Amino acid sequence: MELWYTEEQTPNVRFSMRIKEHLYHEISPFQEIDFFDTYEFGRLFTLDGIIMVTEKDEFIYHDMISHVPMAVNPSIKNVLVIGGGDGGTVRELCRYKTIERIDMVEIDERVVRMCQQYFPQTACELEDERVSLYFEDGISFVKNSKTSYDLILVDSTDPIGPGEGLFTYDFYQDCFNRLTEEGILINQHESPYYPVNAREMVKAHKKIDTLFPVSMVYQFHVPTYPSGHWLFGFASKKFNPVNEIDFTKWNSLNLKTKYYNPELHVGCFALPNYVKELLND
Amino acid sequence: MELWYTEEQTPNVRFSMRIKEHLYHEISPFQEIDFFDTYEFGRLFTLDGIIMVTEKDEFIYHDMISHVPMAVNPSIKNVLVIGGGDGGTVRELCRYKTIERIDMVEIDERVVRMCQQYFPQTACELEDERVSLYFEDGISFVKNSKTSYDLILVDSTDPIGPGEGLFTYDFYQDCFNRLTEEGILINQHESPYYPVNAREMVKAHKKIDTLFPVSMVYQFHVPTYPSGHWLFGFASKKFNPVNEIDFTKWNSLNLKTKYYNPELHVGCFALPNYVKELLND
Repeated sequence: MELWYTEEQTPNVRFSMRIKEHLYHEISPFQEIDFFDTYEFGRLFTLDGIIMVTEKDEFIYHDMISHVPMAVNPSIKNVLVIGGGDGGTVRELCRYKTIERIDMVEIDERVVRMCQQYFPQTACELEDERVSLYFEDGISFVKNSKTSYDLILVDSTDPIGPGEGLFTYDFYQDCFNRLTEEGILINQHESPYYPVNAREMVKAHKKIDTLFPVSMVYQFHVPTYPSGHWLFGFASKKFNPVNEIDFTKWNSLNLKTKYYNPELHVGCFALPNYVKELLND
Repeated sequence: MELWYTEEQTPNVRFSMRIKEHLYHEISPFQEIDFFDTYEFGRLFTLDGIIMVTEKDEFIYHDMISHVPMAVNPSIKNVLVIGGGDGGTVRELCRYKTIERIDMVEIDERVVRMCQQYFPQTACELEDERVSLYFEDGISFVKNSKTSYDLILVDSTDPIGPGEGLFTYDFYQDCFNRLTEEGILINQHESPYYPVNAREMVKAHKKIDTLFPVSMVYQFHVPTYPSGHWLFGFASKKFNPVNEIDFTKWNSLNLKTKYYNPELHVGCFALPNYVKELLND
């Protein structure tokens, strides 16, 4: 018997992984949650049939969402994570002893609880005493919060279903308002390759670009996401993440990373012409 | 009726494209040659069931194999292309008016002839008067040639079937011997992600690294290749492609490129830690 998980990356493109075992299935009030064991990628976690995290390549996404802003401003103390239910982003943040507070707002508690059970590799630091979990809508959390953050990480799903409101102008405006004068916003920025993703990338960039003095995009390779070419947005009230960066402080922390390094940090902001043209269009 | 082309990227991973039409099939003395029309990627060309080129993303591979060495040394006059039967590499080289001679050695004439028919987008410059086509084994061509080249581009298939000998120490040694004192070798360097590709990447790098004073690797995104994370090797007797580069000359050419640009040139040599560790192992 052969069992295959297949993701329709576009109506005309499919990506399939051979499955050892379908470990868990649940329909929460928000979405369909599944965990699998795969032959090539280890554990696999999907939401509504879309790949969120695999054991083999989660380090890439989580390195790039966390270490890029932390290297730009190693003095960051207060962090807000929107989404990120698998815990991988919080895991990386917890490696910085100088961070004092991490608020994580995940709409679906079932995702967190099931990742704690089936993805201990990523969900391993959610009990850290600096971490507060809020199981509520990130949009209203940001709108109503009175806290100031040095860093907001939007670790969201695609802009369909529960993630949709995390790609709106109003949400980015509320993030701007919650950030300190040195604040940085990192957002899941989709991909430039397939038109369905590229459209969302362009829309998100336009909204953020009108709000923040610094608004850039950086790229990395996530083989299990559509096209493997994925992006984060870097927006800031103050810091240019390439021209004004000094890695002395970050290097002195001696963090061992499997994907991120300072040369790659600078390199990942150098985008192909076709991506630059889409963003500047 | 739905028709799908499926590539087994590893025994446990499959990538599938929806097909409009199977345009052509032939078994040549060397390999199985197929052309398709796809819904997402335009024309598709496969050898032995492995994706070689698609209309949608061929610009990425061909930009990166040609413009990186040409920007490092814009004085290159004599170029040898090994493989490259689709013609895309020669197409990009022909944009440099200063190149005087391009020898292209492709073992399988049927690939070239059929690409001329079904892939005019890439095979459009093979009639340029500077281009000489040799339909013979690249390994013996390099061993027996008396010509000196400023640049050798190994635009090969994977190291199984006809491409296997293009990943050997003896072949790289012969390339070294054919290169001028300023000579550059670019080789198809596989991918770091799936173990089956990473093993070949490491083996190729070790061989080239013992031969050339400068031996580096650069990365790019090719969504239709396994993992989408692909590499070229840059080896040279003289030039460091990052530290010693001056883009003034290349910029003055005003070449319009869809993927390559000077910032990306520098950025693409910045590799993730896990790739660096594999290469230095």
